[in-house]
Amino acid sequence: MATFLSAGDVARIVSRIGMRRFWLQLVDYLREDFTAWAAFDKWPRFASHSPGGVIELMPASDGAAFAFKYVNGHPGNTRLGLQTVVAYGALSNVETGYPVLLADMTLATAFRTAATSALAARHLARPDSGAMALIGLGAQSEFQASAFRAILGVDRLRVFDVDPAATDKFERNMRGAGFTLARCADARDAARGADIVTTITADKKRATILARDMIAPGVHVNGVGGDCPGKTELARELLLDAEIFVEYAPQTRMEGDIQQLPADHPVTELHEVIAGRHAGRTSASSITIFDSVGFALEDFSVLRLLRDLAIETGVGEEIELVAAPANPKDLFSLLRSFEAREESPARRGEMSTVD
Amino acid sequence: MATFLSAGDVARIVSRIGMRRFWLQLVDYLREDFTAWAAFDKWPRFASHSPGGVIELMPASDGAAFAFKYVNGHPGNTRLGLQTVVAYGALSNVETGYPVLLADMTLATAFRTAATSALAARHLARPDSGAMALIGLGAQSEFQASAFRAILGVDRLRVFDVDPAATDKFERNMRGAGFTLARCADARDAARGADIVTTITADKKRATILARDMIAPGVHVNGVGGDCPGKTELARELLLDAEIFVEYAPQTRMEGDIQQLPADHPVTELHEVIAGRHAGRTSASSITIFDSVGFALEDFSVLRLLRDLAIETGVGEEIELVAAPANPKDLFSLLRSFEAREESPARRGEMSTVD
Repeated sequence: MATFLSAGDVARIVSRIGMRRFWLQLVDYLREDFTAWAAFDKWPRFASHSPGGVIELMPASDGAAFAFKYVNGHPGNTRLGLQTVVAYGALSNVETGYPVLLADMTLATAFRTAATSALAARHLARPDSGAMALIGLGAQSEFQASAFRAILGVDRLRVFDVDPAATDKFERNMRGAGFTLARCADARDAARGADIVTTITADKKRATILARDMIAPGVHVNGVGGDCPGKTELARELLLDAEIFVEYAPQTRMEGDIQQLPADHPVTELHEVIAGRHAGRTSASSITIFDSVGFALEDFSVLRLLRDLAIETGVGEEIELVAAPANPKDLFSLLRSFEAREESPARRGEMSTVD
Repeated sequence: MATFLSAGDVARIVSRIGMRRFWLQLVDYLREDFTAWAAFDKWPRFASHSPGGVIELMPASDGAAFAFKYVNGHPGNTRLGLQTVVAYGALSNVETGYPVLLADMTLATAFRTAATSALAARHLARPDSGAMALIGLGAQSEFQASAFRAILGVDRLRVFDVDPAATDKFERNMRGAGFTLARCADARDAARGADIVTTITADKKRATILARDMIAPGVHVNGVGGDCPGKTELARELLLDAEIFVEYAPQTRMEGDIQQLPADHPVTELHEVIAGRHAGRTSASSITIFDSVGFALEDFSVLRLLRDLAIETGVGEEIELVAAPANPKDLFSLLRSFEAREESPARRGEMSTVD
């Protein structure tokens, strides 16, 4: 039997243990897995492109557990009242190949993306950072705010979205969450005076959300929305003047904001900083950039946490995800044993082994 | 919501509609998809190897639906009372990326493997074939027998396994299924007089289950067990004297019995025969070989059939495999809406949006 966690179950787990503890544990699991970087197999994601979008399978394994995530990206879905991105994933035991957990990952992906941003900022932002600009107030925005509050103590937000309805939604969701919130006129206004600038805009194009002159010395840029080929948010000049940190360089050079830079432009992988092999920010006046694209290891971490919390809280449903015949060499008997279990003699008569 | 089919549900569906109809419909779905060969994206399977075995993800898409299967292969599992191979898979809508079906595929894989063998034999075996040798009586053996009975009318079996307990199990499972069954002393004895010879042995090595002189003119060999690098069943001399048919040549040259042959040895892909572009068997005295390794298109076909039969029979459970927020741009509200749904005021107190 494997445990199944629906989106409701994931929300129930977070509710049971409290969101603050969930964020802190998730960052801890991410830190552990980024520290064990060398133990992980790094595979390119599998992607199936169609006119309407993309379907991806993202596998990761540390040799003890194997995880994969199914995730799509369909920009036209919102016109149908559907989400642009939905996801689910599973965790297996590498020793036996048997699945142990299946879970919705729409929420889990939002959590792990924000927690990874906050983990990076913990190493890269100035320690006294208290004000964050949040540019782009879509589905990920509240997760970013919530993670930065729980993990770094950020309590002042300067927010902007081209759509006032998105800002209304953000304000509604963040009510009572302990933020001082400033609605800003544009991205330049939002970035003014912020210690951390987070960009999570949606347009699938080469955009310039942050120009070079919008970012002061000492600021940390958390670039989340430049995350696939042809979609960028940061001006090239800004990238050239900053210390750049990435999850996994071969992937980020294709998908991240650094797709604008030559393939040999120096960048530092986040795990080097987390493991203490690289200093991170070199001075209080440097501009640091975390060019986030999302990496399968992060899905692995959140699935591992959800498995442990499902056990702790008892949330979730045991499902027969794979067959379990009494004799493993006798799969066919499942059909016969089922036949024997069927209640009605009439129905039993319908089942014949061969014809 | 997506439909979930457990192994029990798959067995229930087969029981409801009758196994004979299930086989005939499955062959029909396979025929349709093999005929639409050009519409399918052909991807290499993703494989993660570990000391204990392998975990694979096998994707397939015809542009309208996307399917993938998770499947493992762990030879040591039977020592733990577990199956060597378990599998599950899912079907999605390519237009939206949303999943529609999740199903155990341990049974479904056994069904599609046998149905593909029978479909190949329908085109390649002599039309008057009534006697089949079955060498290797593991988990797949009864499915092969059952498929060949339903689809080709094979009613005489000559069976052999090195383990008498496996033969006992096979006899038990096939009781009352309408076969005349001969227990044979060895593989050579089993092959004697058979019109079709099916090999499905388990040893992961380069074995010679069928030597050249064991196969008479006009016989069709259904080689199922030579299905991964380093695992073969057929003598090289037998391959050289036969007309060879495969699912997808690039994959079979790595995984099938033809891994023993030069990379340019002529083989015919099954879809060419099914679509009528290739004649199949060229004479009544030819030896034909279907070098089966299992292809993702076959998983696609069986998932497609299971989806249609789940709708027809009402079997299966609707599960919240991916989150469904009321406003697709407002994922965070799922946490709040869940909080509002929680019954106990005490528990409600535990949940705080940020800390």
